[in-house]
Formats: sequence, C-alpha cells, structure tokens
Amino acid sequence: MRFKLGCSLAYEVKSPTTFIFNVEVAQLRSLDIISEALTLTPDPGRRVYVHPDLKNRYLGVTAQEGALSLEYNAEVALSVTRADPATIRETPVAELPLDILPFLLPSRFVSSDRLTPFAQAEFGALPQGHERVNAICNWIHDHIAYQRGASDSETTADETLLKRAGVCRDFAHLGTAFCRALGIPARFVSCYAYGLVPRDFHAVFEAYLDGRWWLFDATRQAHLDGLVRIGVGRDAAEIAFSTPFGTMEPTGMEIRIDRADGGPEPAQRTVDAISTETPAPNAGAV
Amino acid sequence: MRFKLGCSLAYEVKSPTTFIFNVEVAQLRSLDIISEALTLTPDPGRRVYVHPDLKNRYLGVTAQEGALSLEYNAEVALSVTRADPATIRETPVAELPLDILPFLLPSRFVSSDRLTPFAQAEFGALPQGHERVNAICNWIHDHIAYQRGASDSETTADETLLKRAGVCRDFAHLGTAFCRALGIPARFVSCYAYGLVPRDFHAVFEAYLDGRWWLFDATRQAHLDGLVRIGVGRDAAEIAFSTPFGTMEPTGMEIRIDRADGGPEPAQRTVDAISTETPAPNAGAV
Amino acid sequence: MRFKLGCSLAYEVKSPTTFIFNVEVAQLRSLDIISEALTLTPDPGRRVYVHPDLKNRYLGVTAQEGALSLEYNAEVALSVTRADPATIRETPVAELPLDILPFLLPSRFVSSDRLTPFAQAEFGALPQGHERVNAICNWIHDHIAYQRGASDSETTADETLLKRAGVCRDFAHLGTAFCRALGIPARFVSCYAYGLVPRDFHAVFEAYLDGRWWLFDATRQAHLDGLVRIGVGRDAAEIAFSTPFGTMEPTGMEIRIDRADGGPEPAQRTVDAISTETPAPNAGAV
Amino acid sequence: MRFKLGCSLAYEVKSPTTFIFNVEVAQLRSLDIISEALTLTPDPGRRVYVHPDLKNRYLGVTAQEGALSLEYNAEVALSVTRADPATIRETPVAELPLDILPFLLPSRFVSSDRLTPFAQAEFGALPQGHERVNAICNWIHDHIAYQRGASDSETTADETLLKRAGVCRDFAHLGTAFCRALGIPARFVSCYAYGLVPRDFHAVFEAYLDGRWWLFDATRQAHLDGLVRIGVGRDAAEIAFSTPFGTMEPTGMEIRIDRADGGPEPAQRTVDAISTETPAPNAGAV
Repeated sequence: MRFKLGCSLAYEVKSPTTFIFNVEVAQLRSLDIISEALTLTPDPGRRVYVHPDLKNRYLGVTAQEGALSLEYNAEVALSVTRADPATIRETPVAELPLDILPFLLPSRFVSSDRLTPFAQAEFGALPQGHERVNAICNWIHDHIAYQRGASDSETTADETLLKRAGVCRDFAHLGTAFCRALGIPARFVSCYAYGLVPRDFHAVFEAYLDGRWWLFDATRQAHLDGLVRIGVGRDAAEIAFSTPFGTMEPTGMEIRIDRADGGPEPAQRTVDAISTETPAPNAGAV
Repeated sequence: MRFKLGCSLAYEVKSPTTFIFNVEVAQLRSLDIISEALTLTPDPGRRVYVHPDLKNRYLGVTAQEGALSLEYNAEVALSVTRADPATIRETPVAELPLDILPFLLPSRFVSSDRLTPFAQAEFGALPQGHERVNAICNWIHDHIAYQRGASDSETTADETLLKRAGVCRDFAHLGTAFCRALGIPARFVSCYAYGLVPRDFHAVFEAYLDGRWWLFDATRQAHLDGLVRIGVGRDAAEIAFSTPFGTMEPTGMEIRIDRADGGPEPAQRTVDAISTETPAPNAGAV
Repeated sequence: MRFKLGCSLAYEVKSPTTFIFNVEVAQLRSLDIISEALTLTPDPGRRVYVHPDLKNRYLGVTAQEGALSLEYNAEVALSVTRADPATIRETPVAELPLDILPFLLPSRFVSSDRLTPFAQAEFGALPQGHERVNAICNWIHDHIAYQRGASDSETTADETLLKRAGVCRDFAHLGTAFCRALGIPARFVSCYAYGLVPRDFHAVFEAYLDGRWWLFDATRQAHLDGLVRIGVGRDAAEIAFSTPFGTMEPTGMEIRIDRADGGPEPAQRTVDAISTETPAPNAGAV
Repeated sequence: MRFKLGCSLAYEVKSPTTFIFNVEVAQLRSLDIISEALTLTPDPGRRVYVHPDLKNRYLGVTAQEGALSLEYNAEVALSVTRADPATIRETPVAELPLDILPFLLPSRFVSSDRLTPFAQAEFGALPQGHERVNAICNWIHDHIAYQRGASDSETTADETLLKRAGVCRDFAHLGTAFCRALGIPARFVSCYAYGLVPRDFHAVFEAYLDGRWWLFDATRQAHLDGLVRIGVGRDAAEIAFSTPFGTMEPTGMEIRIDRADGGPEPAQRTVDAISTETPAPNAGAV
C-alpha cells in the first residue's frame, strides 16, 4: 500500500534545548520512500544518526529561545510479508541468532523478569507459535482498559498489569514483557498507523518467530498491514518521537497518514500474520 | 601492562541448556590479544557473535545433560590512555554524538529517571567534569556498604540507594544511574580486575566525558589501569558472564588475572583518569 | 471442640533483647480457656498487654545474654458459629459500624489500593456475600503456589500477585487485600490450626459480612472450625508471634494442637460458614 | 491559647455516598471545647464514633444525590506542655508501654522497614532524645522541597525520599518513618494549624519520648504550640478529613483558625518542646 504521512510539531523553547527527534520513517527494504521532506522553522542546523542495525533515524537539533516547528511529510510504499498464522512456530532459544537474544532481556519499562510467573501461569501451556502471541494480545485487549491519563512516562509493564489500564505505549510494553517472559524475543515499535482514530503516533510490538519479526497490536486499533515503522527498540525510552534536553513547552502536534494510491480503507482488518522486516544476514556472526 | 587472565566455569546440566557466555576479552584497539584459548568439555559446537558497535564477544553453546566445563585463558597487553582529571570537562548534550545518547536513558537496573531528584540535589551543584563523577564514586563508597547477599538479580539502583548495601554490580548500577540522571552518558562494564581480592568477575562503569569513555570504580577495590574489559552495556543484564536457558546448576567457578610482564603490583592506585576506549568515528552519522 | 495446644520457642540471646510475644490464645467469648500455663526459662519478668478492642494478648520480656525458652500450653473449648454460606450477604458501607471501617484501609502488606483495578475486574461482578469471598479464596488457591521461601518479611500483596507464590502469610494478605479493594472489611488472623501439616503457626483472614466476622483460609490447609485464634490485626506486622528488639538467634520452635475431647479428625472439611467472633456492642459509638 | 477554628466543606453527590468525616477536634484533656457546632445541609442523619484510645471523632453521613455541605465551628482552649528539649531522652524499648509498640511498626505509607538502612546511616549516631528527632526534621526540611502536586494519595515515605519533594502529608510520613526505623515510636497527626499560610488542614507527627508524645513539624510552617489536633493514626489513611464511598465531587473547601483571646501572632516560633497529650494510664495493661 502507498501512504502519504507525516507530522507537524511545534514548541516554545524557553532555554537553549537539544531535541532528539525520531519521526522519520525507518530505512527498511520493505519501505520505499518515494518522496520526503523535513522542514525546521527556524532551522538551527541538524545532526543525523541512523542506527546501524535497527535503521531508526534520529535527528538532533539544538534550538535557541523562541518558537520552533518541525514539519515532516513523506510518501511511502509499504510491502508487507503475509503468512498464515498457523504456520508460524516459535524459534527454540538454541536456534535464535545471537544478535536477537538481547530482546529477551528485561528493560526499563518491560519488566519481564517480574512478570515471568504471571506469564508462565497464564500463557505457558498455550499452543506455541504466532497464535500464542495473538492470545497474549487478546488477553491484554480483554483485561486492560484503554484509558488516557492512566499512566505516565515512568509506568512499567508490571504496574500496567495491576492498574488494568493504559495507553498504546503500555499495551505494547505489556505484550513485549509477556513475550520475553516466555522466551520469545520481542521489541517495541513506534509507527504511523493507518486507521487509528484519533490520529496520533502509535505504539505496537514485534515478536521474533520462525526466523522473522512479526507485528502485533494489543490495542486492536489500527490495520496491521498499515503500520509504517518509525523506530524499534527495547522499550519506549529508546524511540520517543521527541526527547528534549532543556526547557521548552509543546505548543502543537498533528499526525497524519492517508492512502496515497486511492485505495479505500479496507472493510475489515487482516487476519494474516504481518511482517515488514526482511531477515538480515547476521552481521557480527562468524 | 601485560596480563595473563582467564576463568574456569563448570556446570551440571539437568536438561538441554543454551548458554550465552560473555567471558572473552573485548575486541578493543587498546587491548592486544597475544594468545587466547577457550576450551569446552565436551564441546557441543559453538556460535559466536561480536556486537558491531560495542565489540563484546558472545559465545552460544547448547549443552546436553551432564557435566559442562569452560576453560578460558588469554595473554593480553593493555594500553590505557591517561589524563589529568582536572582537564576533563563534561560534554554538553548539544555536542554529544547521537550514538552516545542512548546511554543517557534509564534501563532495567539503572533507574536514572527515579533518581534524578536525588542526583540533582546531591551532585547538581558540584564542579563539572571528571571530578564530579569521581565525587559520585566517593559518595557511593562512603554511603553504600559492600556486602555479599545484600542484593539479588532484580535489584535496581534506587533500591540499592535505600538499602545502602550491595556488591560491585550494584555500585556500578548506582554510579551509572547518578551520571545519567545528571545528563552524563554512562554504561556498565564487566571486566577482569587486576588487584581485586578475592578474585571474581568485576563490574565498574564508564562515563562519557570530553569526547571519550572514562573508567570509574565506586568500590575502589581494583587498579583502574588494570581493568581488562569483557563487555559494556546498558546494565548488568546485557553482559552477564553466563546467561543459561534451561535447567542447570553451577558447580565451579574460578577467575584469574596476573601480571605477565613480571612487574610488581603497584604500591598504590593511580590517581590519573584512565580510558581504554579509542574514540571511534561515528559509524551511522552523516 | 476441645483442643490441647501450645508452642515451645527457644532463642540464643546475644545482646539484651526485648521480645514481644503474641502466642497466647485471644480472650474471646467463643473460646473457653480451661487451663493455661506459660513458662519462661529463665524468667526475667513479664509485662502483659491485652488490646482493649481486639483482645490480642501481648507478652513483653526483656532477656539478657544466654538461652531463653518459652513454653506455652493450654486446653481450650472453642465454640464456633455456623451458618449456611448462601444466607450471608455483604454489608453496605452505609450500614457498617464505624469502628469496622479501618479494616477497609490499605496497610503495609495489604496494598488494597494498588489492587483495586485487579479485584474489581476479577471479582467485581460476582454474586455478593460469603460466596464472593469464597470465590476469592478459590482464585488464590488456584493461582498462587504454596511455596516456602517465595517471600520474605517485606513482601506485599501486590508482589504476591505478580510472583504467584507465597506462604500462608501471603495468602492471607492477598485475600485481605482483595476484600478491602471490593469494599469488604477484612483483617489478618494468626492462629493454632487443627489439621495443618506440618504443624506451624497459621495465618488466615476474616471478612466482615452481615454484621459479623467470618473466617476464610485461602490455603485450604486446615479445618475452618479448628482455628484457635491468637491475634487479629491489619496485617502480619501487628501480630507476629515474636517481635524481638535486640540481637538474638532462634534455636528451636515447635507448635502443637490436638483434640482434647477424644474426637477423631473429621473425614472432611466443613462447608459451613464459620465465625468465632461474637458481635460486640460498638463501644465508642453514640 | 484560645482559638476559633473550623471548616466549610461542599460536595456535589452523584450517587448515594457514605462519607466518613474526621474534622472535629479530638477529645483531649489538654483541649477544652468551649463551644462547638457542626451543621450538615441537608442533614441526612449522622453516626458518630470516638476511637476509645486515640479519641479521634469520626462522623458517618450517607448522602443522596445533590449538594451536601458541612460547616464546623468551634472555640477551644489549648493547654500545651512545654519542656526544654535538652531534657527529653529517648525511651529504651524495654521501657516502652506495650500499647505504644504498634507505633514502631511499618504502615501503608510509612515504609519504615524499607528506610531502616538510610535512617541508621544518617541519624543512627546522632545524640539521642528530642534533639535527634529535631535533627530529622531539619534534614527533611533541608532535603525535601515543599511542592504541591509532587505526590498523590498512594505516595509512600520511601518514594518521597527519592523524589525529594512532597506536601505536609509526605513530610509527616517521612518523619514518622525515620523515627520508627530508629526504634522511636511515631504517629501521624492531622490538625488545625495556627499560622499556616495558606490555610489548610495540616499534617505533622508525634514521637514518643521520655514517656510522652511530642509534636514535630518537618515543614516548619506553623506554630508548634498552635496545633489543634483532629486525629492521630498510623498514617494519613486512618485520619483523612473526608473518606467518601460513592461518586461525588468536592466543590468547596475552606479551613480557618484564629486567636480567640485577642493575642497577637507571636513574633517568632517557640523553641520549646511541645506536647498536648497527657500520659494515660495503660488501659489494657496488667
């Protein structure tokens, strides 16, 4: 599918502030960037960093006092890999590529070590494979209320489980945590999400199954084949759309994504397993 | 300095277990590996992964039931960079390389976000630079008791601050957390430590100051110019010397490091600032 | 039923230590104390306090260095009030006696405020009354493993829920927390428990329903009509069998309870609702 | 000193709600209630409970949908006991009345068990007595920022220590926790506070020293000899000025306290040790 997407962010900078933005789409083989423009007003100079493995694109900007706005627009063509969920097995840890293993470890907001007994008890005996991770998403969807204001920037997966409420960030952290607790590598994904209402940056997660990363959205709020990746990381901290160092105030924010190929919004959501990541040769492996 | 070092690890494997070992010295320009051998008994086959940025070396081994032992020996020459601590300033966030910024983020055991008010109150007004991080180490050394059994594998930096006790892992997590809370990138380091009594794997931390990573040891138990790096990471989870997936029992463990050049143990510890990391060109930067 | 019960406790006192013991049976109308003796060896003098409302009996002893042993034996006749569980409704908060209301509040180990969303989601829609609290006990019995060493003296109810394991203290804390989170007053009970194997002090809880306190044991390990109360409190902290202030080491501990009336251990556990507390006139109320 | 004091509270009740109010002054020998009136509009009937030991007065009101207002006014004469702080020693645990001992235990918001290492390290070696508790108050005053919004109704003393910010409730919880961690019985006190700006319900704490409860205010915001007690308890949960069960919204709140004897506000705060509690014979003791 082809999408036009982008965002407009505005800030009132009160003291010189270094922003790290992560709003540009990731550099993936599955994602053709047909056109793209990012405007800063004023433009105080830019630094750019692309994570060598993950292909997240970070933009560093140091702004002086006053207004700062960022306008990003892109047209992209997204190719997704589809599969029958029933055919996707879990990969035994003995067969996991070693560079995937860090995604089994707990991270700041993905307290998988604290959730291991819970995950084992609820999901340990379920049939393995893509359907087990789907069952985790169903459980989260059924047991956690989607509720703005239920969490803050320090909320961890175990707290979300107790509070039974959260936003997309919390749903993704909890799904990621349950997977890691079961020995399934998982990571946090930020994206532009086609079909999400109201429009906003979205957070979902990927689980590594059968040699490939597969997308999951425990909120069930967007089309799985319409998720255009911005970044992946251990958890939300690594891929915030804006990480400011300094004193500033957000004054505006708008996110957009539309079909660029004239296609209508599909009547219903896909039931295929969806992946947008081509398995990469294991760079550091011997 | 030249060192002979190594370790002997033994396990009784109860069910097929995949081990990820991280015991080999890192591949650093400052570290010449003169000779090296790693023996597994039995040897069920090995997988090897070197982290492309950090140069940690991971060894994957899937062992069947029965005894497994690992013997590692190396002779290395370590070149350290020395500097007068008074000359090492902090790097403003606007000048930090973008690939260094992730080491400002909180991680599972380095709860720097929860420790920010404490760190700002205790250390926020101190003179900046290498001496501020040294002051942090002095504070930890004076306020935290080195005490075996005071912590476990889930202990976080904020818990250590309240418990006022821990082991080298906890000292390193707390130092790392205080630095990140102050805007100083910091990371966890595992190493063979010359002078450490009793001999064990050691944990210290590095802070990024003035364009380079500098070593700090809040336990004050080893020679700063005798730390031979095994791995660096966000926190202990990433560079455990052994991460087993399966059922097994450790049955033996010995760590060793000695001077290989006949030099005596120095009468006193260096007061120089010490670094073993050559600043690398920023691979992903444009 | 008539019971012979008691305990033998032994300590090696290393520095002068004040012990607060709570091992004598409570002063209840439902509990006739036929005979009773408490011996201290040596006997350094005793202070006694009976809680005016709760009727727990505390014994204060300040011991010097050396061995200290306590021997307690009693013969008691316990009258229990039985009822058909189906007839016991919940008391609306508007009808709760005001002196019962504190047992709705969270306490140190009964983190009912943190467990409210969970309790509401799992138990909020169940039929109210004795059967709802029984359903809570069934849930705990089915989801929490009885496992020595799974918890320590600082473990809270929310931690037990995540760890899915604990001992009788943790089962009672969690049951108490779920009740309070649902608006049902509940309190922690320590007791001699007929039928418990192996013999030990036991912890259960009481919920206030239909004008009276009813006993519940989420561990399902003892006879509900064979629980001889020692103390009740907000949580375990208030009624530890021994609270020592000083340096000492426990060197022996034996608990016993047997039928004194020759009756056999019943073939199966009662399915009646059981209470041992006579509703008291509300002393401070006007 | 003689005071006119009171409060006006207003609510919009959305569904039938049972309120437990604790706004009337406590029934103390040191506090003559010269006149007193409490008006409810409308008045749906009242239930009253006076805690037999602590003498807190609780008012139970079940209101239907619509507006509810409470108006309380009293004129009281407060007699305080003054002493030279230097003469007030700590009471060894072996001499503490047994009914005082529960105030050594941790409670929901007074996590003294988690703060023991910190308290011992900071205050363990200070000269004992009233001056040690005063030193604790000075430490809190110097290290914790008084900041509205820094905490919520679930904030515990250990969290306040890490956040380094709170309101009077948090200051009192932390002071209470440090005392208990040092073996000094301490409890939370709510009061009308003469001199507090802006006017509000105030929270302070009492420590049991030398056979009597002494008042301490770590916020240093009111006159210690102008604190008119409403309630005492283990922590804030027990003596909230309003505990509502039901759906309602606070719509108004005003607190007042003025000298009724024409005396001016004193130029400076007393440096005497202040107590308002007459030592009571130990009711349950034998």
